[in-house]
Amino acid sequence: MKHARIAWAGAVHHAIERDGKLELQTPAFKGRLLNFDAVGWLPPLADMPLHRPRTVLALAINYADHARELAFKPPEEPLAFAKGAASLIGHQAFTVRPDSVQNMHYECELAVVIGREAKHVRKGDAYDFVRGYTVANDYAIRDYLENWYRPNLRVKNRDTCTPIGPWLVDAADVADPMNLKLRTTVNGQVTQQGSTADMVFDVPTLIEYFSSFMTLYPGDLILTGTPDGVVDCPVGSAVVTEVEGIGALTNTIVAPAR
Amino acid sequence: MKHARIAWAGAVHHAIERDGKLELQTPAFKGRLLNFDAVGWLPPLADMPLHRPRTVLALAINYADHARELAFKPPEEPLAFAKGAASLIGHQAFTVRPDSVQNMHYECELAVVIGREAKHVRKGDAYDFVRGYTVANDYAIRDYLENWYRPNLRVKNRDTCTPIGPWLVDAADVADPMNLKLRTTVNGQVTQQGSTADMVFDVPTLIEYFSSFMTLYPGDLILTGTPDGVVDCPVGSAVVTEVEGIGALTNTIVAPAR
Repeated sequence: MKHARIAWAGAVHHAIERDGKLELQTPAFKGRLLNFDAVGWLPPLADMPLHRPRTVLALAINYADHARELAFKPPEEPLAFAKGAASLIGHQAFTVRPDSVQNMHYECELAVVIGREAKHVRKGDAYDFVRGYTVANDYAIRDYLENWYRPNLRVKNRDTCTPIGPWLVDAADVADPMNLKLRTTVNGQVTQQGSTADMVFDVPTLIEYFSSFMTLYPGDLILTGTPDGVVDCPVGSAVVTEVEGIGALTNTIVAPAR
Repeated sequence: MKHARIAWAGAVHHAIERDGKLELQTPAFKGRLLNFDAVGWLPPLADMPLHRPRTVLALAINYADHARELAFKPPEEPLAFAKGAASLIGHQAFTVRPDSVQNMHYECELAVVIGREAKHVRKGDAYDFVRGYTVANDYAIRDYLENWYRPNLRVKNRDTCTPIGPWLVDAADVADPMNLKLRTTVNGQVTQQGSTADMVFDVPTLIEYFSSFMTLYPGDLILTGTPDGVVDCPVGSAVVTEVEGIGALTNTIVAPAR
């Protein structure tokens, strides 16, 4: 099943995909069908429980071809960092390009949504802890990268620069998350193609790794890295990052407000 | 005023300090006085609004003497990273020392709590956006540090390894946040002494810097870095990190559960 979180008629709702429409799950409107273009799309995660903040983890250099593209040796353990969850934004978002930068790169990524508290999980059990998947576009403003080792906050933690969505797809509906095609188009031209099969550290290994030293909680996100083929996106670019069977996440690059 | 968030009688409460006791603010028990040792202490931050996750930012190498101690040139712009908020824990916490590590260092830090949405704030206005201050002990497991440039998640994002508290002290009660003594004791011996006057980037500069590229929201935290004098803490260490006028944050190093 594909789940969305949408704004419609003055409230936020949970909806599921039904024959090319959104079916509302809110009790008062349960079963009502809406067109995709009749709603505002939000990051497709249920609101977190109050007592546990959500953690967003991201991988750098997790595809061997992207490592080569950057002339970087693939890492020997996951090269991971945390992001502020306030940088998340939904499908059809406007993403702000900072003034005077030369390299604003999209990054098409499979995003894993954790479903159960996970600590000391072994690789073989890792999928039991996955709630589902969504698509992330983990933009990097490479002008500010002073060191490849781990990107800084000016590169990776800017407002509007981490679109996710449109759907949260149930784990049960994804037969093999390690064999999904990824594709990015900019203004309709294909600029990035890859496959999750080429990850340096696959999803079970990442869950084993993170849960070896920290607890993962329901709603936590792992953005698993991007393959090669990143290019600069000027203002006006219509960027679609797509993961096979998970969804096509659309966003538009805009200039900063004056 | 000093604010605490405590667990007592089956619920979480907001309390304030009154003549060496905790005065409950919960309407049903308003004015009731409790002893400090009669409650469970939690991180002293109000629950976040549902629509905005809380972001925890931390500074590396933000005291010149600590940079010298680590044989590191002071950075030219803030060397900052994000943390998962699930690593936060309160006053009197047990903090787990991983097995087989040689260097588990406390880090006594002034923590800034943001009070108002902040974007493009100028240094001269920065204090208007501060809700108050607390003490953080931003432990680092240095065995896992493969690169000084920015610490990785195994160093800085472990469960129980970021105690904060005991109090959130109102900004209005802190005359000069840039002139506060810091002190750490381990088993009663002073091991670290410093002053916030020695920060490389002071609090207004940090708020100007972060808000230049990301929005800071109420409840966001900035852990401002630590002075020199970090030492290894074996299991059983009683560690007290103290910031003048803000509080003394106590915690105990324990072994992992078997």
